[in-house]
Amino acid sequence: MSGQLDDAGKLKHLLTLEGMPRSVLEALLKRADALATHAHGGNGMRGVLHGKAVCTLFFEASTRTRCSFSLAAQRLGADLLNFDASTASTTKGETDVDTLKTLEAMGVHGFIVRHKMDGAVAALARAALPGTVLINAGDGRSNHPTQGLLDMLTLQQAKGPDFSAMKVLIVGDVKHSRVARSDLHALHALRTGEVRVCGPASLLPGGDTLRGCMVGDDLDAMLDGVDAVMMLRLQRERMVEGLITSLEDYHRDFGLTKARLQHAAPDAIVMHPGPMNRGIEITDDVADGPQSRVLQQVANGVAVRMAVLETLLG
Amino acid sequence: MSGQLDDAGKLKHLLTLEGMPRSVLEALLKRADALATHAHGGNGMRGVLHGKAVCTLFFEASTRTRCSFSLAAQRLGADLLNFDASTASTTKGETDVDTLKTLEAMGVHGFIVRHKMDGAVAALARAALPGTVLINAGDGRSNHPTQGLLDMLTLQQAKGPDFSAMKVLIVGDVKHSRVARSDLHALHALRTGEVRVCGPASLLPGGDTLRGCMVGDDLDAMLDGVDAVMMLRLQRERMVEGLITSLEDYHRDFGLTKARLQHAAPDAIVMHPGPMNRGIEITDDVADGPQSRVLQQVANGVAVRMAVLETLLG
Amino acid sequence: MSGQLDDAGKLKHLLTLEGMPRSVLEALLKRADALATHAHGGNGMRGVLHGKAVCTLFFEASTRTRCSFSLAAQRLGADLLNFDASTASTTKGETDVDTLKTLEAMGVHGFIVRHKMDGAVAALARAALPGTVLINAGDGRSNHPTQGLLDMLTLQQAKGPDFSAMKVLIVGDVKHSRVARSDLHALHALRTGEVRVCGPASLLPGGDTLRGCMVGDDLDAMLDGVDAVMMLRLQRERMVEGLITSLEDYHRDFGLTKARLQHAAPDAIVMHPGPMNRGIEITDDVADGPQSRVLQQVANGVAVRMAVLETLLG
Repeated sequence: MSGQLDDAGKLKHLLTLEGMPRSVLEALLKRADALATHAHGGNGMRGVLHGKAVCTLFFEASTRTRCSFSLAAQRLGADLLNFDASTASTTKGETDVDTLKTLEAMGVHGFIVRHKMDGAVAALARAALPGTVLINAGDGRSNHPTQGLLDMLTLQQAKGPDFSAMKVLIVGDVKHSRVARSDLHALHALRTGEVRVCGPASLLPGGDTLRGCMVGDDLDAMLDGVDAVMMLRLQRERMVEGLITSLEDYHRDFGLTKARLQHAAPDAIVMHPGPMNRGIEITDDVADGPQSRVLQQVANGVAVRMAVLETLLG
Repeated sequence: MSGQLDDAGKLKHLLTLEGMPRSVLEALLKRADALATHAHGGNGMRGVLHGKAVCTLFFEASTRTRCSFSLAAQRLGADLLNFDASTASTTKGETDVDTLKTLEAMGVHGFIVRHKMDGAVAALARAALPGTVLINAGDGRSNHPTQGLLDMLTLQQAKGPDFSAMKVLIVGDVKHSRVARSDLHALHALRTGEVRVCGPASLLPGGDTLRGCMVGDDLDAMLDGVDAVMMLRLQRERMVEGLITSLEDYHRDFGLTKARLQHAAPDAIVMHPGPMNRGIEITDDVADGPQSRVLQQVANGVAVRMAVLETLLG
Repeated sequence: MSGQLDDAGKLKHLLTLEGMPRSVLEALLKRADALATHAHGGNGMRGVLHGKAVCTLFFEASTRTRCSFSLAAQRLGADLLNFDASTASTTKGETDVDTLKTLEAMGVHGFIVRHKMDGAVAALARAALPGTVLINAGDGRSNHPTQGLLDMLTLQQAKGPDFSAMKVLIVGDVKHSRVARSDLHALHALRTGEVRVCGPASLLPGGDTLRGCMVGDDLDAMLDGVDAVMMLRLQRERMVEGLITSLEDYHRDFGLTKARLQHAAPDAIVMHPGPMNRGIEITDDVADGPQSRVLQQVANGVAVRMAVLETLLG
C-alpha cells in the first residue's frame, strides 16, 4: 500500500492519511491532544529527540509549515537542519534521491519533506534506509497529512470525539488542494456522519476523491445545519487559468460571510488552513469572529507535529 | 503613548526610545554593561529563556542585526526561529498581522521585528496577545532602539555615566536614518550636555527631530571639542535621488578623516553603526584607528540585546 | 607559510592541506576515524563546544558543505550562526574583512568560510584576532581541506593506513577543482605509492600541481590496477567555455562505467565528492555499486568536521 506501516502495522513514515487504520489515527490524535496543552513552552519533552537530527527538506517553499515543524522539533530537543532544496545543489542537477541519501549519510534520522510533485515523498521513502523516517509535509495536490491531523484535532476539541455525529462542510478549490484530500481521508477514516463539499464545478475533482460526500455548488444550502465549515484558500492563479470568472464572483458565490454562516448550526466552527485571502474566501468578521478556530488550528499544528515526530522518531 | 510600558511603568515591548523614562533606559544600560563582559561565551545565562521561543520576523532583510539578536537569544537558551518575511507567505497576500498571529499561535513568545514602514512594529504590538513581546529591530526611518541603546552604552563606557558633561556630534544623512533618531531620543533622555548634528541641508530632517540640537554644515567647526562623533552610513541611492551631488563631494565635505578628527577633543571616540562605506563617510585610518569604537559597538550590541530579551521575556 | 600553524607547530586555522606536516594530518584522521562511529547521534560530545559560537560564512553558496558543518557543530554543542554572505550586507559594499571583524566582535569564535576567490580564506585568517579560528570550506580552485581529509579517511578505512602501498587515480576536471588539489596535497603528504591523474588536456592544470603524478588521457590504461578511483564532478559550463566538445564525448572518454572499472584492482573503491552528474562522469551502476564509497565519504565528512572543530576550538 502506502508503505508507511511496517509488518506489525506500526507507523514507520507519515506519507498519507489515505487508508490509515483508524486506531493509528486516533492514537496520534490522542497524543497530540495531550501535547496541545504543553506545546507552548514546556521543557519536559527536551529529551525525546535529544541527539536525533531532523531535516526540513523542502523542494517547494513553505515558511509556515517549516516554522511549525521547526518549533515542534526544537521542543523535543532534536538537532535541526533546514535544507532549502529549491536553491541548493538540486539545482546543480542532483537527483532528489541523491540529496536524501547524502543527508541520510550525514546522520539525519528524520526528514520533513515538501514537494511539488504528487507521490514524490513516498518515492523518497522507498529509497530511504531502514530506520530513516519520512514525514510528508505536503506533496503536489495529494497529501498534507499533518494538516489533516490538526484539522481533526481541532474538530474533536470543539465537537467531542464522536465523528459519526458530525456534519462537516469543505468549501472551495478541492481539486487542487492537498489539504482537502487529507481532510477527506481523515474524515472518512473517522467515519464522520456527513461530509459535504461545495465549490464551483471547475474546482471540484473527478474520480473517487469525493466518494461518499454530498456535493453541491449552492453554499447557503450546503451550510445548512453543519457543525464545521472548512474553508480552503483560493489560489489567485485559478483566475488566470480561467477556472473562475473573477475574485468578486468567487467571493459572492463561495465566500464565507457572517450572514451566510447563520445557515450553519449555531455553534458551528469555522476553519481555514491559512494563509487566508481575507475578503475573498472569508470575510474579516468570520475569520476573526467567535466561531473561528483558525489560530487554534495553528496551535494544534505544533502539537500534532510533536506527536508525529515523537511517535516516529522518539 | 507608544504602548511599550504597562500601567505600572514596566517595559512590555521595546518599540522606541522616544519618551522612554530615563530610569528604564538606565536600567537597561546598566544590565547590558554587566552582560558585556559575559557576552562572549559565558554559559551561566542559558536558563534565562529556556523553553521560550523567539522569532526574528524581518519584513526587510538585515543580516547583521539578525545575527546579533540570534546570538543574544541563543546565549539565553531560547528556541530560535528565523522568519524571512520578504520571501514567505506574506508574498501570498497574507497580512502582516496574520503572519504575527500565526506565529504567536505556534507558541512564539517574543518577536524581533524589522520593517520598511514607519510605525509597523508598533502596529503589530497593538495586535499581539497580552504576554507577547515585540522588539523593534528597525522600522522605516523612525526607530532602531537597540542601536540607540548600544550607542549609549558605548559612549558611557568611554566617557563615564554623566551624559550632561558630554558633547556628541552626529554626522550625515540624519533625514533617512532610524539610527540617528534613536540616538537623538536616547541622548535627550539622558540629558546629554550638547548634541550637534552636521550634514548637507538636503539630508537633514525638518520638524521637531533636531529640536535642542546645534545644527550646521561645516564639519570642521561642528567637530570642535566634541567628545564623540557618530558617523552615519551614506546610502548610495541618495546620489541617484539627487540629494547629494557626488560621493566625492560628500566625502570632501562630510567624510571623517584623520586630519579632520583633530578638531575634536583629543580623546574623542568615533562611532559608526555599520556597514561602513570606507572612503566615503569615513576613511580607513579613522575606522581602524585608536579612537574608533566601531567594533566595540558591535560587541555591545549583543550585550544590549541580551539585556532587552532578558528584561522583556526572562 | 600558510599561517595555519603556530610557533609550536600546532594548528590554529585549517586553510590548506598543502605543506601540512604529516603528523598533524594523521592526528586529524585518527580522531575523525574514532568519531566516525559516533558521528550519527552520540550525545557524549555536546560539551566540547558548549558556549562557543560558530558561524558558517559562505560568500559562495554550498548547501551540502554547510549542512555537514552544521551537523558537526551541533553535535559538539556549539551555538550556530548561518551567514549567507551572498545575500547580506556584503552586497551593501562592506568588505569581507569588515564582515568578519563584525561577527568576531559579536563573539563568534570559529568561522567556516567558503569563498569564490583563491586565497580569500587565508586573507581573512590574517585579519582575524588571535584566538579566532578560520576553517576553509573551499576557496576558488585552491583548497577544500576538509574534503581532502574525508577522502583520505575513506581511503584509509578501505585500504588500511599504509598509503605507500596504494595506487590512487583522480579523473576529470582537475584544473578547476579545489577537491582535486586538496586530495593531491594530502596524498603527497601521506606519501601515497602512486598518484595518477586522468582527464582531457584542456581540463588538466599546468605548473606544479601535478608534480609527482602519472598523467594521461587514456582512462582504461590509467585505471589499470588502481586501488581507488576518485571521480570529479564535471561542471556543465565547461562545455559552454569550449573546454570539452560535448557531454557525450566526455562521458565516452572519461565517464566511469562498470565495464571500465574492471581495469582497476578487483577490490578498488570508487569515490566522488558529490553532487554527481549521473550518466556523465559516472554511471548509476558504479555510483550505486558495491565498490562505491560515495555515501561513506559523506558520513566521514561529518566526522572529519567534528574532529577539525574539536581540535581547533575544543
